[in-house]
Amino acid sequence: LEPGGSAAALGHDVGRLRPAIAPSGQVLRACRAAGMLAVHAREGHRPDLSDPAPAKRVRGRFPAGIGDPDPMGRILMRSQHGHDIVRKLAPAPGGPVAHNPGEGAFYATDQAMLRSRGIAWLIVCGVATEVCINITVREADDRGSTASCWRTALARISPNSSRPVLR
Amino acid sequence: LEPGGSAAALGHDVGRLRPAIAPSGQVLRACRAAGMLAVHAREGHRPDLSDPAPAKRVRGRFPAGIGDPDPMGRILMRSQHGHDIVRKLAPAPGGPVAHNPGEGAFYATDQAMLRSRGIAWLIVCGVATEVCINITVREADDRGSTASCWRTALARISPNSSRPVLR
Repeated sequence: LEPGGSAAALGHDVGRLRPAIAPSGQVLRACRAAGMLAVHAREGHRPDLSDPAPAKRVRGRFPAGIGDPDPMGRILMRSQHGHDIVRKLAPAPGGPVAHNPGEGAFYATDQAMLRSRGIAWLIVCGVATEVCINITVREADDRGSTASCWRTALARISPNSSRPVLR
Repeated sequence: LEPGGSAAALGHDVGRLRPAIAPSGQVLRACRAAGMLAVHAREGHRPDLSDPAPAKRVRGRFPAGIGDPDPMGRILMRSQHGHDIVRKLAPAPGGPVAHNPGEGAFYATDQAMLRSRGIAWLIVCGVATEVCINITVREADDRGSTASCWRTALARISPNSSRPVLR
């Protein structure tokens, strides 16, 4: 979400996404104050490029692709600075962070997030509404959790911002 | 999609969904003529109700729920007539049919549909655009396949039909 990060290097307009940061921080702080578990999830890949599907690497008309260099390291690579969670929303030390190689936060992630903790209710914040948030909410639903979104803590990546994707 | 079937018994307006049938049949016949594999997927549950998540059973304001009686058997139950695929779109004898207990055709299904056959390209038809089709296309994407939809072979379950969910 910062200039020079993975999303910007892929050619996305991060200015469209950044309005989700402050409200997400408010939700995060309120949840922590209430003793709720906060789980961070981010889309990213192994540096050996073993996990992005071939179709994912060639798709779109982006100026750069997964694993290419960006000003903060390599695009969408685990452990690279451009893939870090923005400082204002940083996980607690040792807090759970899921690495998801897909857009959905539940597909092939290394966190058995919900089942192992018996979590039935989720509040979802982040970006982008019509991509990762959309599929993550539906994945949670199929897995038996009830997911709600905090409307102001979401942001769309597409300019067609008047079209709702979640209700 | 028929009066008395599972969707109707749940309270959905199946008249809104039926326009997808004829175009889906055209796509199905064209694909068969071209020697392409046709896979049917349908949302449904085991008769012992072991697989719908509790949240799924209580959600919504439907007049009836999963497993309740309907005019064709029991709602969204495997092997019940109300859960059959409509005759015009019937699978070939012995053809692959996925039983998916979620809305996504890839979650917890008993068909390892894509990977075991090395399928990279999909044409998706069916209902409902903003629910099962939406998540299935995104699931396919995360699994490395490129999914396209046949626009006229889809139908929405919601009355807000002017709002696109897929582009």
